[in-house]
Amino acid sequence: MDTRETFLDKAAAIIGVDNVVRVAGEAGYKDPYPLNPGRDKWPGVRPGSVEEVQALVRLANQTRVALWTFSKGKNLGYGGPEPRDQSTVAMDLGRMDAIHEVDDKLCYAVVEPGVTFFDLFDYIQERDLKVWTSVPALGWGSVMGNLLDRGYGMTPMGDHVKALCGMEVVLPDGELVRTGMWAMEGTDLGPIFQGGFGPTLEGLFTQSNLGIVTKIGLWLMPWPDVYVSGDVTVEREEDLPQLIDILTELRRQDITQNNALCGNVVRAATMRGAKRDFYDGEGSIPDERLEEMRQEFGIGQWNARFAIYGDKGMAERRLEIIKERFAGMEGVEVNARFYEGSEGQAVAYEDIAEIDRTQMAGVPTLKPLSTVGWAAENGGHIDAAPIIPARGQEVYDFYQEAKQLYREYGFDLYIGYHLYPRHMVHVTMIFFELGNDEMLARARELYEKLLDAARRRGYAPYRSHVDYMDRIADGFDFNNNAARRLQEKLKDALDPNGIVSPGKQGIWPARLRSGESAQLPALIPAEV
Amino acid sequence: MDTRETFLDKAAAIIGVDNVVRVAGEAGYKDPYPLNPGRDKWPGVRPGSVEEVQALVRLANQTRVALWTFSKGKNLGYGGPEPRDQSTVAMDLGRMDAIHEVDDKLCYAVVEPGVTFFDLFDYIQERDLKVWTSVPALGWGSVMGNLLDRGYGMTPMGDHVKALCGMEVVLPDGELVRTGMWAMEGTDLGPIFQGGFGPTLEGLFTQSNLGIVTKIGLWLMPWPDVYVSGDVTVEREEDLPQLIDILTELRRQDITQNNALCGNVVRAATMRGAKRDFYDGEGSIPDERLEEMRQEFGIGQWNARFAIYGDKGMAERRLEIIKERFAGMEGVEVNARFYEGSEGQAVAYEDIAEIDRTQMAGVPTLKPLSTVGWAAENGGHIDAAPIIPARGQEVYDFYQEAKQLYREYGFDLYIGYHLYPRHMVHVTMIFFELGNDEMLARARELYEKLLDAARRRGYAPYRSHVDYMDRIADGFDFNNNAARRLQEKLKDALDPNGIVSPGKQGIWPARLRSGESAQLPALIPAEV
Repeated sequence: MDTRETFLDKAAAIIGVDNVVRVAGEAGYKDPYPLNPGRDKWPGVRPGSVEEVQALVRLANQTRVALWTFSKGKNLGYGGPEPRDQSTVAMDLGRMDAIHEVDDKLCYAVVEPGVTFFDLFDYIQERDLKVWTSVPALGWGSVMGNLLDRGYGMTPMGDHVKALCGMEVVLPDGELVRTGMWAMEGTDLGPIFQGGFGPTLEGLFTQSNLGIVTKIGLWLMPWPDVYVSGDVTVEREEDLPQLIDILTELRRQDITQNNALCGNVVRAATMRGAKRDFYDGEGSIPDERLEEMRQEFGIGQWNARFAIYGDKGMAERRLEIIKERFAGMEGVEVNARFYEGSEGQAVAYEDIAEIDRTQMAGVPTLKPLSTVGWAAENGGHIDAAPIIPARGQEVYDFYQEAKQLYREYGFDLYIGYHLYPRHMVHVTMIFFELGNDEMLARARELYEKLLDAARRRGYAPYRSHVDYMDRIADGFDFNNNAARRLQEKLKDALDPNGIVSPGKQGIWPARLRSGESAQLPALIPAEV
Repeated sequence: MDTRETFLDKAAAIIGVDNVVRVAGEAGYKDPYPLNPGRDKWPGVRPGSVEEVQALVRLANQTRVALWTFSKGKNLGYGGPEPRDQSTVAMDLGRMDAIHEVDDKLCYAVVEPGVTFFDLFDYIQERDLKVWTSVPALGWGSVMGNLLDRGYGMTPMGDHVKALCGMEVVLPDGELVRTGMWAMEGTDLGPIFQGGFGPTLEGLFTQSNLGIVTKIGLWLMPWPDVYVSGDVTVEREEDLPQLIDILTELRRQDITQNNALCGNVVRAATMRGAKRDFYDGEGSIPDERLEEMRQEFGIGQWNARFAIYGDKGMAERRLEIIKERFAGMEGVEVNARFYEGSEGQAVAYEDIAEIDRTQMAGVPTLKPLSTVGWAAENGGHIDAAPIIPARGQEVYDFYQEAKQLYREYGFDLYIGYHLYPRHMVHVTMIFFELGNDEMLARARELYEKLLDAARRRGYAPYRSHVDYMDRIADGFDFNNNAARRLQEKLKDALDPNGIVSPGKQGIWPARLRSGESAQLPALIPAEV
């Protein structure tokens, strides 16, 4: 019997046999969009409480079986629940799904890992609480999991990790820690004040394998009086730099209040059908056809969306300023739909047209799932999302290099930029057919080329697919990768047996580290 | 020759004899407001570069002499440059004072430890750069030092630690690390994107003895079109809860844009003279006299200040809303001075009346220094500043307990509340006469009573005087002080010899830890 079997048998005594997932038939964990062929499904445990997480962590130390933790495993395009090392056991935290508190006066919540964006949204609506959530593209994932991986949404509180306020964490030795003000017994300040006493610990547990987070405090946004959903369309491809400079300046000046999303024609097409509906040639859709499609769709080469929230008078003035800023630009159109409540009430979701009940309004959805059928009915995707300074010309230069690479590999460059005050996330997606080995090989090669092109310019992705974590971490090369060496030192101090998510973000425990970290390490030794 | 002498001799070879500060005559470091009698002055070293910091850290490891680091040592009311352990050597980073970059398009700066708020402000004005800084009460301190201790200012970017974007740190073993995107060679993203790859490290080096920070990226605020300086005065003491609830709701809704400051009559009096100018009785000034003084000054029992920044039309609407919110309240007056530039230009500092070129406008000053003469010509102070949830009634309850304690100990309760969206900082000061042992003993006892009263309610200060760090850290008692035990584990991993700032924020290296951490440890062993 291998070590993992021993672990699973003993785990059953802790959490019950029904919460031990063994690979059989439909059961087992798997990346729904595997980039590499032949990966096995993979067993797991589903603790239902903090105490069970602690007990499983202690068991993992005893049996030297490593755990790969996730909340809902919906990290699509980044590996889903997929571990770095297939000899680990999944620790699926989805059963821990309590919403402990939502306070709509001071605007915060306390949630466990299994709470999804749908769950939190529904909880708030059912109780008529006066707060908005912020949600990522798909609403079925974990609020906490998304935040810990530094995902984002599109409301003014869309940079999710910045809304983190206090954590409860099971350390790799099974010890329970609360951070920030929560480190005091008998306080209300845990989810209220970001900061505590001494070195701040929360950051250690984001994109991390230094502990297993079991609860977080989360700030929410007060319900606005009015909501404005705005669009800017730009006809010509080469006007991107100006568009970015204007939008990011508006954001720096807090005229627009959320990170604008800027998409291209391919992105618009993925929402309207599959590639074959628009083009039946080989390789990438050519520019001429994209321009035709643009005109058929009645959109721009670039299509940005922004939103405004809050007081009506202020919202009106914001919109006026936005229109002024774009007034001098050719081939640009700014439109906005203004939503307010009836009879002086704050806007309600029923007041907002279906088309604008989106991410920017903090409404969870599964609509973007359909885009995955772009390349084939049985489709998947991987996301490449480097961070770039919010300087229009610099973004355009990288865009052109990316476009050239997509063309070379025969994919269509899907763009959904997110524009922040000082940086932008250059989100591009590669759509492929599941199980199509030739296409997958091309997708992987393109992905690697994109990573290399970004790194040459001093850019890196803000998060990573499990398969590329070492490669990206290698790029953080100041002083012989001093930052990773520090992260490894912390890893060794907190997790000497290396039982929590080995290899996450390129950080391996000592026993699995090699001089050449870019190689996948050997499997975990099987001694108990 | 003792170990410290050995260290200082060898240090001279690294940094030059002129940069070794030996205790003699005027030379040596000292808390300007010592709470305890009989403290010695204290020697130090003044490195001029990162390489010198590294060399001194290595020397400290070799000689087992611990360093107590600070940037400018202007942490007044918290001990200034004073160490926890007088057997350490000061590492004064004030000579490292380069401003590497200020970018007024993306709004950030890169500064070294010795850069003061005056320095940065002057640099920006001289070059006519279009950004505003945020400054604390006194402008002579280090921008970086204040941020690392989690100090704050009063502009929209007043929560200084949140403006931190990337760090360069000398670890206790002398290794140089850069965090976030700066961990890449050849990138511009260091001061642009908060976050990097894997666990976030910046928090570890705030209120910390885990490393010596030698450079930070810092976000700045874009220069506003208009600036509005506003006041709210409230006549009756018992209207504080409503005032706080209205102001913090305005802040949560982003109608006001900075953390409002709310002071009482004692605070106003400290700006107008010394205690003896207003009251010649024994003990605290009685309520009846405070009410008289209030009327003489023509102010409220509570006097709040807020500010508005940005576009003129939006600022006008903001002010309108603020006035509406207070319209229903009795004995309240809202006033605002509106500043704009001439001929459609953005407001310039010359357009702003002297009285409003304050912290709220990001202008550094030394004016508040004069308040230190309240209790005696030769005066000092200590600050007690617990964090409290931003709920008016809760604040008022604690205020009453604090007032009772001040009365009991014969001091005047100075209040300068800072109101944030979800929490408030209950800043109170105790003014004393330097060297007056009886008064100092009373001040210390009052301070401890205030700490205890706060802790009983689940509150803790956001930062600490060096003398009270253990006591406050003890209050973070969840799971047998699990957070501190984790911080200690990190300390042991990064600083096994315990040479960086032992005892800072209650975190001692293993060799100085006792079961009872509240006691001051023995001096550092003198073996080399």
